[in-house]
Amino acid sequence: MTEEITYPEYNIHYPLLLKNCLKRPLALYPDDIGVVYRNDAGHYYRFTWRQWQERACRLAQALKALGVNPGKPDQPGDRIGTMSLNHHWHLESIYATTCIGAVSHPINIRLSLDHMAYTITHAEDKILLFDDAVLPLVEALYDRIKSTVQKFVFISGKPGRPKTRIEPLYEYEELLKEQPPAMDWPDFDEDTHAVLYYTTGTTGLPKGALFTHRQLFLQTLYTMGNRFLTPRLPDDPPNPNTIVTMINVPLYHIHAWQAPFANVYAASRIVFPGRFTPQSFCELVETEKVNATAMVPTMLAMLIEYPDFHKYDLSSLTTVGTGGAALPLGLKAKAEKMFPRFTVGSGYGMTETLAGVIGATIKRDMVDWPKEKLDQVRVKTGLPNQAIDVLVRGEDGKPVPQDNETIGEIVLRGHWIMQKYFKDPEKTNAAWRDGWFHTGDAAKVDQDGYIIIVDRITDVIRSGAEMVPTVLLENLTCNADFVLEATYVGVPDEKWGERPMCLARCLPNSEKTEEDLLKFLEREGVETGKLAKWMLPDYIVFCDEIPKTSVGKYDKIAIRKKMEEYVEKAKKLHKK
Amino acid sequence: MTEEITYPEYNIHYPLLLKNCLKRPLALYPDDIGVVYRNDAGHYYRFTWRQWQERACRLAQALKALGVNPGKPDQPGDRIGTMSLNHHWHLESIYATTCIGAVSHPINIRLSLDHMAYTITHAEDKILLFDDAVLPLVEALYDRIKSTVQKFVFISGKPGRPKTRIEPLYEYEELLKEQPPAMDWPDFDEDTHAVLYYTTGTTGLPKGALFTHRQLFLQTLYTMGNRFLTPRLPDDPPNPNTIVTMINVPLYHIHAWQAPFANVYAASRIVFPGRFTPQSFCELVETEKVNATAMVPTMLAMLIEYPDFHKYDLSSLTTVGTGGAALPLGLKAKAEKMFPRFTVGSGYGMTETLAGVIGATIKRDMVDWPKEKLDQVRVKTGLPNQAIDVLVRGEDGKPVPQDNETIGEIVLRGHWIMQKYFKDPEKTNAAWRDGWFHTGDAAKVDQDGYIIIVDRITDVIRSGAEMVPTVLLENLTCNADFVLEATYVGVPDEKWGERPMCLARCLPNSEKTEEDLLKFLEREGVETGKLAKWMLPDYIVFCDEIPKTSVGKYDKIAIRKKMEEYVEKAKKLHKK
Repeated sequence: MTEEITYPEYNIHYPLLLKNCLKRPLALYPDDIGVVYRNDAGHYYRFTWRQWQERACRLAQALKALGVNPGKPDQPGDRIGTMSLNHHWHLESIYATTCIGAVSHPINIRLSLDHMAYTITHAEDKILLFDDAVLPLVEALYDRIKSTVQKFVFISGKPGRPKTRIEPLYEYEELLKEQPPAMDWPDFDEDTHAVLYYTTGTTGLPKGALFTHRQLFLQTLYTMGNRFLTPRLPDDPPNPNTIVTMINVPLYHIHAWQAPFANVYAASRIVFPGRFTPQSFCELVETEKVNATAMVPTMLAMLIEYPDFHKYDLSSLTTVGTGGAALPLGLKAKAEKMFPRFTVGSGYGMTETLAGVIGATIKRDMVDWPKEKLDQVRVKTGLPNQAIDVLVRGEDGKPVPQDNETIGEIVLRGHWIMQKYFKDPEKTNAAWRDGWFHTGDAAKVDQDGYIIIVDRITDVIRSGAEMVPTVLLENLTCNADFVLEATYVGVPDEKWGERPMCLARCLPNSEKTEEDLLKFLEREGVETGKLAKWMLPDYIVFCDEIPKTSVGKYDKIAIRKKMEEYVEKAKKLHKK
Repeated sequence: MTEEITYPEYNIHYPLLLKNCLKRPLALYPDDIGVVYRNDAGHYYRFTWRQWQERACRLAQALKALGVNPGKPDQPGDRIGTMSLNHHWHLESIYATTCIGAVSHPINIRLSLDHMAYTITHAEDKILLFDDAVLPLVEALYDRIKSTVQKFVFISGKPGRPKTRIEPLYEYEELLKEQPPAMDWPDFDEDTHAVLYYTTGTTGLPKGALFTHRQLFLQTLYTMGNRFLTPRLPDDPPNPNTIVTMINVPLYHIHAWQAPFANVYAASRIVFPGRFTPQSFCELVETEKVNATAMVPTMLAMLIEYPDFHKYDLSSLTTVGTGGAALPLGLKAKAEKMFPRFTVGSGYGMTETLAGVIGATIKRDMVDWPKEKLDQVRVKTGLPNQAIDVLVRGEDGKPVPQDNETIGEIVLRGHWIMQKYFKDPEKTNAAWRDGWFHTGDAAKVDQDGYIIIVDRITDVIRSGAEMVPTVLLENLTCNADFVLEATYVGVPDEKWGERPMCLARCLPNSEKTEEDLLKFLEREGVETGKLAKWMLPDYIVFCDEIPKTSVGKYDKIAIRKKMEEYVEKAKKLHKK
């Protein structure tokens, strides 16, 4: 009998690789502007898809010439760290690194020096690419990382070497000049690791989450489909044929919610502000006619306070959303006035889930609902992404009832849930139990099956036998028009175990008192039935700043460390 | 050191299975009507997604009770043949079979009896499901397949057993009653085979093309993304939130161009006409408010001749396309009058490629072009689907130049190219050579990189050293307003090797002559520069019928068999 010769690598096992993201822009729109960067000095860099890809090809070959080795499914390739702002160089380095089979490690430059040094040495970054903006940071880290990092690559728009003791130091643009602009991206196993992200380490040392090409690329494919399947509201403007998107969220922050891959695949024009400032945002929207962007609530708050906001033409923006943290209702009302097309977003994801895995889904039978009713859906955390299995499991291990009350832990499985923490079997085993990834996040499920995040399991305030719905309290509190932001932590209490304390930051010129806030919560919370009376805070502290982690989340560990100080400052309140 | 326990099957290897298509409709729209069938007698069947899925669950368990075994990556599961029209039963059987790991084999009921018997015995179908419409066919086949098929399942909307000698015979609806409506679809390897289709065997015995779950599901995901990424024209109506699609193309024909999977995944409402007739089409569009459908040109021709066409309200149709065969320009003009939203489509796919792999892509910089210019793009075969690598290779093995002239063979690789023919290593090795699947189809590539199909490599007419552009000739010929359809074959010629002969079917009441057609071709082809003079046919035959294969393509083998007869009948023409 004839021996069968087949080519599974070219059919049933044709690999799901990130290089496939590059095919569409190059095949269809090579001469369209693909990537734009505006630096702090207001200088613009613009590249067509062909030009930008040629730069990535040159860098890939330069990395190989510098000795970067690819990985195999069971052995991650060399890690290439990046410490930089959001710009074309950063995007080039992500593709150049991953598409030759090495591992891209975007380093969170807002971590403490200790944690940054830890992630670089733990990741064993062989090469570190960094831009001129972070040179002082790298110099400060140098002694702690120089025995790990073998080569440093300096990114700058200006020619010439900086004065620095960092060595061996290569210049990015010089490396590119030495290499040809074309290469065939190699084929390799889709289970090869592509990226390594560290968590922000709010509860200990940062942990490294590894993802494979297959995971990242499948997430990209699903994202495209979800965009098609999102129901349109009657007054939605048509989708633009060319999406022009500004990536405000740092690329080291869960790949800016998958933006680098989905937007290249879609051949959307990517606009980088370098570092988010109200001015860079407004200027780029106006000059590049940005039509889609997303930001964390903190950025939105900065825009709201920006005095020159009204000087710019931002009418191109048809999609403005937020994510990364719950949007206070007060902030939402202000954002809606500023951006006619602003839509409050909600969702859930973490470093270990690559991107969002739960999203505030509008179903097609809701499209004719009034905006207020829709917004009530939009502020729920949402429904699972169809590619991910999500359970909210109670303490008995079973899914909690859909009663909008019982709290359980969110557990996950699916295509883009991290398999393991890099070099950390203990933490891996603690998270992956019983075939489910345990997020440590607490949630309830409402009558319609929507999941609503309550808090970190460890941050939940337990008063008596009950859990206090922290996020609901936070949102309600921010709805007071004199409050800018607010959070809640539990204060030890002899009788109840814990009682809630509110930390709130008010508008600079506000003359309202803690009692005013309490009255607001009684009126808008208890009297409307949203809160039970026992949920009201026993303590309210007005403060100039609420401690936050490097990604802008309330840092409850830092708050708890200063608990006595806050309690002393707090008003013990007299409720009705 | 702690031993790491990870769950790759729930993260990096979470399988790409067809059961994932069922998640969205069930999670978001369980009580929406999902599947509609109108039978020949005008009776309607309507099922919500939940009801339809419950039926598929019951059938799956019934199949297991009948002894159906799942497969493994290297060993296809039991084959379950279906011989039936397009209806909910057929769709249920495809999901019930594939989602338990067995192989669905939709049998082409328009093949010859010999070829049908061959595919059933070659596939070794363990169970055969068939509907009442094809009972006579199964009876005719019975003696030839009864030693292969172990069990027969009779599908009918009417209760009771038919009078037949076929046995053992089970009734579909009775089987369902015995099973519970719920089951957890099992997890298994994504490389498990899901479907088996046979080619129509125009050049010999039908060949069986096997596809895996991964292949079918990835094709579905890409399809969703492509719908999002298709540029919209300025006057395109908004996409409906609920697509209501009528599946006219038989499910045994390359899974009706992936319709069963993409439409379930998207929770589009699927409307089945059973058997395509102009009446069933028009009535279903009117009653179900069908907004999207596709058909082969033959169906379009039937609608054009349907006298009651104008009696129906077909205004819901916003997307009407054709595929499966080139659309003659004459037919296009008529279709555009009948359907205001008709768009001529083009593309390329074959049984071995699961669905389309080349499509007439409108790029976003073309959206403002006038319709005529756009249509010139739309009738080109098109650009490769981004998931598939496509080359047109000349006889030297290199890609042909983009000169709109040099003809080469289309070769393919990618996610949903068939790995092998079932039980046919010779044919597999003949097709897969050098890491590429050889289609046997001839094409050229124009200056913009668009691929234009010329003919089967074996059907190409070679006149002197040149190849005659058959498809171009066919399209031009059909543009004559008295011609309904036309094809070309090569007539042996001492001097030139071959010379083109045209077979044309004219309008019933036409009084035009062969000379009129030649004059038309001279005027519209040669004088406009579309044709060289030597390409004009030496022979023209007007005939009442042009031989076609079971899928409606011109049967050039049958034509060649009767070559002498045609030549005798033909007019040897005197050209200018």
